[in-house]
Amino acid sequence: MLKPLILVTNDDGITAPGLRHLIYLMNTLGEVVVVAPESPQSGMGHAITIDNTLYSKKVVIDKEKGAPAEYSCSGTPADCVKLALQEILDRKPDIVVSGINHGSNSSINVIYSGTMSAAIEAGIEGIPSIGFSLCDYSWNADFSHLGPSIIKIVQEALDKGMPKGTVLNVNMPKSDAGEIKGIRVCRQARANWKEKFDKRLSPSGKEYYWLTGEFELLDKGDDTDVHAIDSGYISIVPTQFDLTAYHAIQHISNWNLNES
Amino acid sequence: MLKPLILVTNDDGITAPGLRHLIYLMNTLGEVVVVAPESPQSGMGHAITIDNTLYSKKVVIDKEKGAPAEYSCSGTPADCVKLALQEILDRKPDIVVSGINHGSNSSINVIYSGTMSAAIEAGIEGIPSIGFSLCDYSWNADFSHLGPSIIKIVQEALDKGMPKGTVLNVNMPKSDAGEIKGIRVCRQARANWKEKFDKRLSPSGKEYYWLTGEFELLDKGDDTDVHAIDSGYISIVPTQFDLTAYHAIQHISNWNLNES
Repeated sequence: MLKPLILVTNDDGITAPGLRHLIYLMNTLGEVVVVAPESPQSGMGHAITIDNTLYSKKVVIDKEKGAPAEYSCSGTPADCVKLALQEILDRKPDIVVSGINHGSNSSINVIYSGTMSAAIEAGIEGIPSIGFSLCDYSWNADFSHLGPSIIKIVQEALDKGMPKGTVLNVNMPKSDAGEIKGIRVCRQARANWKEKFDKRLSPSGKEYYWLTGEFELLDKGDDTDVHAIDSGYISIVPTQFDLTAYHAIQHISNWNLNES
Repeated sequence: MLKPLILVTNDDGITAPGLRHLIYLMNTLGEVVVVAPESPQSGMGHAITIDNTLYSKKVVIDKEKGAPAEYSCSGTPADCVKLALQEILDRKPDIVVSGINHGSNSSINVIYSGTMSAAIEAGIEGIPSIGFSLCDYSWNADFSHLGPSIIKIVQEALDKGMPKGTVLNVNMPKSDAGEIKGIRVCRQARANWKEKFDKRLSPSGKEYYWLTGEFELLDKGDDTDVHAIDSGYISIVPTQFDLTAYHAIQHISNWNLNES
């Protein structure tokens, strides 16, 4: 029997420890091909490269634990998935996994997430896909506690398939938060970022800004991803790319739009 | 009475004719402040600048028809909104309008859209917001047929407010498609892009790609944005940033995730 074909990508770049750990885990489940950005792409949202050229090259990052085939790409995570599907893979992958992101993509972070944009890009193409993120921004984060849960989630997705128009957003507690208590299927918590711009002067006297901010949770529900993670669970949010606010169609339809 | 404060932005850059036309229209409705990218940002999705510095400067692009205050920003559309809200405006705007984009953001294009990411960024902050797009990619597109409809939509949004967690994605037929028949509130059509990569060789012999593709409509419904536009109407899709696929929560909850 053909082993499942697993496309692995991320937004932290092809050398990121989170990606290397995901490759190592996926090698136990199927035939792995990696197509990942050559440099970090965090915060890229669902960006694609339309006014610039794209490069891709075959690379070997880790002879022992790497995948049989790995490619770096000059573009964004969404570009990587498009390029993999059209130019690199010779058949449709059975699943696309993205991550493991260094940092949370729970709650409103999903909107800004390059990790999730790769998963969504695959979902648009009708391929089961999952974004994995660890709630630890450190480059040297410990991923060793995540193996059994990630394997279980990917195996279930391979066995059962994904509801139409859905991808999974998986967020996982950091290793020093204690033993993982289990896995919960959740909704996206309502939240936003309270931005703060750090205003500085360049050596030549020009004003510039760094974007910083604080996460502000606006949701006290116990069925949210943030609540699950804070309680020691892995959260799975089924995530869609039909952005229609169906509940609002009637409301807007009542506006006076067609009378003169 | 205080005139409404209107923040105008886009993703085609501060000199784009579509933005200039939107400013010209908004000047009739309220006090306009422009904070827009200094260069085109198409396809940027919901990208934000987190690993780089941001610059902003006050500019005058068009003395006669411009806004009283205009700022260019080195970042993405989402950056522009964040910077405007935190650093430039002295009160919360009554509405944020983004566009007029040179090209359609109907259907799945909303996912890749910088125009809509600006609107969504404002929506996350609880501010009514609307992205406007013309289904004409030309830089010299004719925007002159759009005024009454845009004014009507913005005025209704100012008067009636927006359903919670919702922003509007407005797409408009090009001028040579005949007289606009009216405005329809729609759902996002299911579609994807059939990508094609145009593979070329650089002067030094290095392989590179251009991303191209064809829009593929997968949806025959008569309640979609694409159907409305093709029938000569302006489409409004109420658009949300809670990406939870609520219908899929039960499905995924039935997976064997917590047994060992």
